[in-house]
Amino acid sequence: MDVAFVLYERMTALDIVGPYEMLASHPEINAHFVGARRGLVRTDAGLELNAASTFDELPRPDVIVVPGSGYWRAVLEENDALVDWLTAAHPNATWTTSVCTGSTLLAKAGILVGRPATTHWLARELLEELGAVVSTDRVVIDGDVMTAAGVSAGLDMGLTLTSRLFDDARAMLIQLFTEYDPQPPFAAGSVEKAPPEIVEFARQVAADR
Amino acid sequence: MDVAFVLYERMTALDIVGPYEMLASHPEINAHFVGARRGLVRTDAGLELNAASTFDELPRPDVIVVPGSGYWRAVLEENDALVDWLTAAHPNATWTTSVCTGSTLLAKAGILVGRPATTHWLARELLEELGAVVSTDRVVIDGDVMTAAGVSAGLDMGLTLTSRLFDDARAMLIQLFTEYDPQPPFAAGSVEKAPPEIVEFARQVAADR
Repeated sequence: MDVAFVLYERMTALDIVGPYEMLASHPEINAHFVGARRGLVRTDAGLELNAASTFDELPRPDVIVVPGSGYWRAVLEENDALVDWLTAAHPNATWTTSVCTGSTLLAKAGILVGRPATTHWLARELLEELGAVVSTDRVVIDGDVMTAAGVSAGLDMGLTLTSRLFDDARAMLIQLFTEYDPQPPFAAGSVEKAPPEIVEFARQVAADR
Repeated sequence: MDVAFVLYERMTALDIVGPYEMLASHPEINAHFVGARRGLVRTDAGLELNAASTFDELPRPDVIVVPGSGYWRAVLEENDALVDWLTAAHPNATWTTSVCTGSTLLAKAGILVGRPATTHWLARELLEELGAVVSTDRVVIDGDVMTAAGVSAGLDMGLTLTSRLFDDARAMLIQLFTEYDPQPPFAAGSVEKAPPEIVEFARQVAADR
């Protein structure tokens, strides 16, 4: 089973590493790190990941995972090769998935027209403009498409995807290996739960960027 | 503020990317990705990360983050340069931290003698053999040392560390940006919660490796 973990400049590292950590260690899975060209991709907070293969080299992956970016409006204009590859590869894939604003790239590739999907809470309007039916759920499944909310939601999606690709036991095994028994020290992980002044702070930081 | 994100061959990617995503985007932080030598480091499920600088180039970081590995016994023998650097750098650091079996590397560097610390649940005996007082807590703080349990515990540690380096508001801001409102689809993230047959399955997989 070939899994394409998509990489592009200014993507968010955790968006791909969350699902990767849940998926890539299963012996049946061949993990591919694919970009428009081979070589280093600089993520939005500085860590560099290596694209070991190109989109052209992997035309028919079984599973596609597309990360988002802290610069979601800009990257939507910068990644035509990725969008074209998604349009062509999606019909042959068992699962096409995204984390965070990766769903806006799926939408641009024509994959989400009239379909329920989720994204980072700051990008909901954009995803709607691009034709999707926006959900605020953390993980949304619609046929062969699975989308996750912002950044860390990729861990939850990775477990859900593992249970669909294999079974629940395999998902629980990797949950135990990754000791995913979350205990965040604060309860500020969603717009609904965070204090209003923190939500406003976040909107300002995003607008300044 | 210089933060050293330590990279080494066969480390676990999420161990470093969890804390990185919580820490590296704050404007006060200079994120450094340091290894024994510059260049690609292959993590334990195949993703390659780039070490942009060497231990020699960063002798006095303010914060040190050390990841673990799925091959924790082997990597403990393979990383003398890292261990020597840790021994020298720790006394000058504001915080020395680890995720997963990274704590066994801190222990080997002499940092955890008689001190409370945590690690991946499969490595608790090893950490005890190395002289630490093993805790089963998810995040353990002892003076200037902060250790986290397995893999995904680095997200919780990253938030706790952010609140200590800045304040609670900053930690909540990054929690909201990373939408860290976890909803794992199963409750198998600890030895206490996972079904016994899954724990046994995990022990066998680890023993085979």
